[in-house]
Amino acid sequence: MHAAATSTPERQAFYDRLAPNNLAPLWEVLGALITREPQSPCIPAFWRYGDVRPQLMEAGRLITAREAERRVLILENPGMPGKSCITHTLYAGLQLILPGEVAPAHRHSQSALRFVIEGNGAFTAVDGERTLMRPGDFIITPSWTWHDHGNETEEPMVWLDGLDIPLVGFLDASFAEPGNAEQQMETKPVGDSLARYGMGLMPVDWKPATPTSPVFNYPYDRSREALETLKRADDWDPCHGLKLRYVNPATGGSPMPTIQPFMQLLPAGFRTESYRSTDATIYVAVEGSGTSRIGDASFHWQPHDVFVVPSWCPVRHEAGPESVLFSFSDRPVQQALGLWREDRQARAA
Amino acid sequence: MHAAATSTPERQAFYDRLAPNNLAPLWEVLGALITREPQSPCIPAFWRYGDVRPQLMEAGRLITAREAERRVLILENPGMPGKSCITHTLYAGLQLILPGEVAPAHRHSQSALRFVIEGNGAFTAVDGERTLMRPGDFIITPSWTWHDHGNETEEPMVWLDGLDIPLVGFLDASFAEPGNAEQQMETKPVGDSLARYGMGLMPVDWKPATPTSPVFNYPYDRSREALETLKRADDWDPCHGLKLRYVNPATGGSPMPTIQPFMQLLPAGFRTESYRSTDATIYVAVEGSGTSRIGDASFHWQPHDVFVVPSWCPVRHEAGPESVLFSFSDRPVQQALGLWREDRQARAA
Amino acid sequence: MHAAATSTPERQAFYDRLAPNNLAPLWEVLGALITREPQSPCIPAFWRYGDVRPQLMEAGRLITAREAERRVLILENPGMPGKSCITHTLYAGLQLILPGEVAPAHRHSQSALRFVIEGNGAFTAVDGERTLMRPGDFIITPSWTWHDHGNETEEPMVWLDGLDIPLVGFLDASFAEPGNAEQQMETKPVGDSLARYGMGLMPVDWKPATPTSPVFNYPYDRSREALETLKRADDWDPCHGLKLRYVNPATGGSPMPTIQPFMQLLPAGFRTESYRSTDATIYVAVEGSGTSRIGDASFHWQPHDVFVVPSWCPVRHEAGPESVLFSFSDRPVQQALGLWREDRQARAA
Amino acid sequence: MHAAATSTPERQAFYDRLAPNNLAPLWEVLGALITREPQSPCIPAFWRYGDVRPQLMEAGRLITAREAERRVLILENPGMPGKSCITHTLYAGLQLILPGEVAPAHRHSQSALRFVIEGNGAFTAVDGERTLMRPGDFIITPSWTWHDHGNETEEPMVWLDGLDIPLVGFLDASFAEPGNAEQQMETKPVGDSLARYGMGLMPVDWKPATPTSPVFNYPYDRSREALETLKRADDWDPCHGLKLRYVNPATGGSPMPTIQPFMQLLPAGFRTESYRSTDATIYVAVEGSGTSRIGDASFHWQPHDVFVVPSWCPVRHEAGPESVLFSFSDRPVQQALGLWREDRQARAA
Repeated sequence: MHAAATSTPERQAFYDRLAPNNLAPLWEVLGALITREPQSPCIPAFWRYGDVRPQLMEAGRLITAREAERRVLILENPGMPGKSCITHTLYAGLQLILPGEVAPAHRHSQSALRFVIEGNGAFTAVDGERTLMRPGDFIITPSWTWHDHGNETEEPMVWLDGLDIPLVGFLDASFAEPGNAEQQMETKPVGDSLARYGMGLMPVDWKPATPTSPVFNYPYDRSREALETLKRADDWDPCHGLKLRYVNPATGGSPMPTIQPFMQLLPAGFRTESYRSTDATIYVAVEGSGTSRIGDASFHWQPHDVFVVPSWCPVRHEAGPESVLFSFSDRPVQQALGLWREDRQARAA
Repeated sequence: MHAAATSTPERQAFYDRLAPNNLAPLWEVLGALITREPQSPCIPAFWRYGDVRPQLMEAGRLITAREAERRVLILENPGMPGKSCITHTLYAGLQLILPGEVAPAHRHSQSALRFVIEGNGAFTAVDGERTLMRPGDFIITPSWTWHDHGNETEEPMVWLDGLDIPLVGFLDASFAEPGNAEQQMETKPVGDSLARYGMGLMPVDWKPATPTSPVFNYPYDRSREALETLKRADDWDPCHGLKLRYVNPATGGSPMPTIQPFMQLLPAGFRTESYRSTDATIYVAVEGSGTSRIGDASFHWQPHDVFVVPSWCPVRHEAGPESVLFSFSDRPVQQALGLWREDRQARAA
Repeated sequence: MHAAATSTPERQAFYDRLAPNNLAPLWEVLGALITREPQSPCIPAFWRYGDVRPQLMEAGRLITAREAERRVLILENPGMPGKSCITHTLYAGLQLILPGEVAPAHRHSQSALRFVIEGNGAFTAVDGERTLMRPGDFIITPSWTWHDHGNETEEPMVWLDGLDIPLVGFLDASFAEPGNAEQQMETKPVGDSLARYGMGLMPVDWKPATPTSPVFNYPYDRSREALETLKRADDWDPCHGLKLRYVNPATGGSPMPTIQPFMQLLPAGFRTESYRSTDATIYVAVEGSGTSRIGDASFHWQPHDVFVVPSWCPVRHEAGPESVLFSFSDRPVQQALGLWREDRQARAA
Repeated sequence: MHAAATSTPERQAFYDRLAPNNLAPLWEVLGALITREPQSPCIPAFWRYGDVRPQLMEAGRLITAREAERRVLILENPGMPGKSCITHTLYAGLQLILPGEVAPAHRHSQSALRFVIEGNGAFTAVDGERTLMRPGDFIITPSWTWHDHGNETEEPMVWLDGLDIPLVGFLDASFAEPGNAEQQMETKPVGDSLARYGMGLMPVDWKPATPTSPVFNYPYDRSREALETLKRADDWDPCHGLKLRYVNPATGGSPMPTIQPFMQLLPAGFRTESYRSTDATIYVAVEGSGTSRIGDASFHWQPHDVFVVPSWCPVRHEAGPESVLFSFSDRPVQQALGLWREDRQARAA
């Protein structure tokens, strides 16, 4: 927005005298601080599940879930190596729990989502209730709730973790506490929270105490059934195909205050128009296959592959067969702060 | 709250001079206007379905749905005869549509609920979408939406209508319009709105434009499944057993701004403690049987029976076998206005 | 909306058999219940202060404030004689407190506004804080707060009371309690609530516990100064001139959940276009003079005169000199319930 | 929270093979990412105005406001040198405009506050309305509004700028645009927005379109008058004395979605108890003098001095004479996201 001021020896000498007083001239950096458009360090990125899975299984041989506390391979955005983040504000990783293992109880102010990739029937326990995990399920661990994971099945269990770790770190608001037992006690029947809050009804005197959804498992069979019904309307958004956002039924808002997850169906052969928005988005392919052009990069995806669309970077998806994509971003943060923008006529990607 | 002032001839003469100027002395009526506790004209009342049904079927022989526009027997509170209301603020009636009949399209500012009593598969169409009606379904007709009903099955169809007619009349806000065709065109697939808004997801760019739920059928099989799951928690409210309120998933509030419906399960032999609240409530028995003591009255109910608990009148329910009750009241109005009260230790009824 | 069905002897006999069972045929009354447009019993009405004042002073000689509890002449809408209401949902009256008198402490679920007509410096006390009353001040008594009034000046004090008595009665939600002392103790300095909540700041940890404004006096000098500044913008609404609504600074909503007050300036000679809305409105002239045409009636007003515009009745104001009008209605109720409508091109009044 | 796993050559070799695939082992960094308590790079810091002012005036000689676009000395937190931030999420600087100068029109998605230090009567123009700046005034430049500053007085004008630049940068949501003229046209009278939205009333049909306050100048004389009235209540918060937050009168929330400003009075000799919260806070002394102990640092402040309390760092203030402090933080961000915490019994600082 602003060309830097002419440098002169006198000015430079002045700047040198400012620094010891913890002062600096705004006009030297204004254009870099307040940019005409987002200038993100986050870049388009792609992880082929077929490549990652062997390394995840190797991790399974090298360290136990107990020793690791959480046995996760972080998906690091190549634009920010060593920063443990997949976008500027969000973290993602692939977590593995082997049969018989436990990821011990703890709690933290960071909110987490789990999107189930592989395996069937391991559990996440939150505040005394277990939920069984099946491929395509979207599961929440609300901020500051006790949670542990366990796998009492015969198969390895793999899911994608999405957390707001960079954001909470940036806000200097991280708190954490280990449990005093490896696993919490089960105090509620399986399925209780979905029945209590997610079937169009709620307890007569219940009021939400936090902004996080009281439903903590959104099973894939329900989400998929919704897509299946809605595709009959044959009413496709040119930028998105059929795109839904997961909802906190107590407010109509996002299931977590920091992360909005989405589920999207593209009919066979559908090609979206170029689109961009300020919320960098992490995608996981669930069904089908296709190609996404993100800025200058192009990725061909199949089920379980993960890719990232940075802030304000144009994206275009093209489905091969009918395809389903799960995705998530920090959109509710940007919307709460009045900062979110989208551009439905993004210049061609 | 206030004993009327002493009457004197001089005062009376003064009052007589006030009236022609549209003036009146407050102190003569203050105690009647601002009462220590609610003094409702609404009284406890009961309709045995076995008694009403023959009269409803007789109505079916005497007038067509087309001629009647809506063939409904109003349930009139005996405390307010001729007022077409079941409580002070709400209207209820039993509507019959015979095979092959149509209740023609119209719209009005009044909100309506339908609770299905008998029959299977007749439809209500709202804004281009049909929903099939099955016993126990709770269905909404939002304010000012085009709606018509039709019965293409072989059986009579009966449901309970609940509307805010007295309230909208009191607010002088009634608007209505007949359709220009008997039936509206079907523009959306059956089940569309439930899939679009009621499965834990919503269209990515959708925002609610009205306070009414975008889901307009809450099927009984879902509600009943929720009750079935939750009863495993074995955590009973002494005043209510297991009581849920229907929810607008876009806000967490009531499905309609003027009426809150509820669904409640009482385990076999459960006896609630005495309870009262300021929202007069209409009950419909759905399953089981039991007895409700309401003020000084006592009613034994079976499926399809309807009864009324007036404002601030203590009520106690006792279930025979496991029982399910549907109910509705104007609670969201009272809560929006800061007027709702409840008393969980009501003096014994 | 619906022509009544043809009457036949057989039908009539059927209707007669319904009544004892508390049943009635909807089709006989549908058109009267669900009207195409509001059909209010409320009619245009007018009270000339010059006529009412002598009767109010006579009341001051015939009964004490203490005996009357509140010495008020109710302004009764001539369309609803004996109902103690000025519109279908609201009550209004003129209250007089003579020098040295007290209107004793009580509380009730009804919300009250006071709009000061005459006198200078009597007080209303609410929850331990006194506010001094000056002409044009708009003062709130929130639901269920202890309040008393006193006049320690040398002059009679007159104000207009506006309450939601009919509405609270219709909702069967009236509660009231007399104080155990005639006057409450003064526990806060005069002006505390306005300074605490009304100057663009609020206590750091305070959260509103009720929907009513924490500011309970909106002094006329502030309101008038706002009008005086804004008229410089010379930007007049054709239907309203310059019309402001009083605001609860904790929410941006109405100061009370059931009543919205307004303040309005019409420049000299301004003639508004015909307008109507569903919230019947009570006006008080504050400054200037003019004529309002309401439906077929026409009233010429001067300061302190009161008049009523019924629901959906077209109104047109014409100012003589620059004029100020205070008004209030049940608009927040209608808006909360999704029922409020306005018509800015009302057919000529 | 978690001790790093034992390192072995085999594991290290594995980690080395992960990096090229943009993968990393969570267990090596978990304890650093999810900390038991906030671990901020922000440290306590202090700027004596008497020291900064000469350098600011020197800047006034070395560069014009026009060339600089904004002639500001950034206050850089010494814990994050070169990052142009005063806390982790916020930016602050001291801006100088000399008589006759103009800071040209531009707009950006970043929100700004101005807190006036020195000078009297220069203006900030926002969306066609000028507001005159006086010491102690708190002024808003809402996100994406055109704004320019000018000084038509005879004195230098200095104010503190507070912006959400680091936060908007972290969210990758920066947009900016230069004006096509140096100064925008004045289209509204001075004082219009305060009169229109800040006097307890609002335009009858106005609805907020953004989360930012429609009032953009909160003059010091009003804020100071509120403090003066409220101190008569003699009701002091042990941690804060008398602390108020500035409010958006359209919502009751913060004046800007990303920044909450506060105004606080400490009576002479008052010593607050130790307190901490997760929102790092920037203070400006307005009146009086005192000492603040922040973690292990201790600063003695006088009017115009600036100091920073980092996240979760205990602070204790001690006033000499009666003192007034202005402060601001990112609290509304943390509260919107459910992350804000405070500790009123912070371990002794």
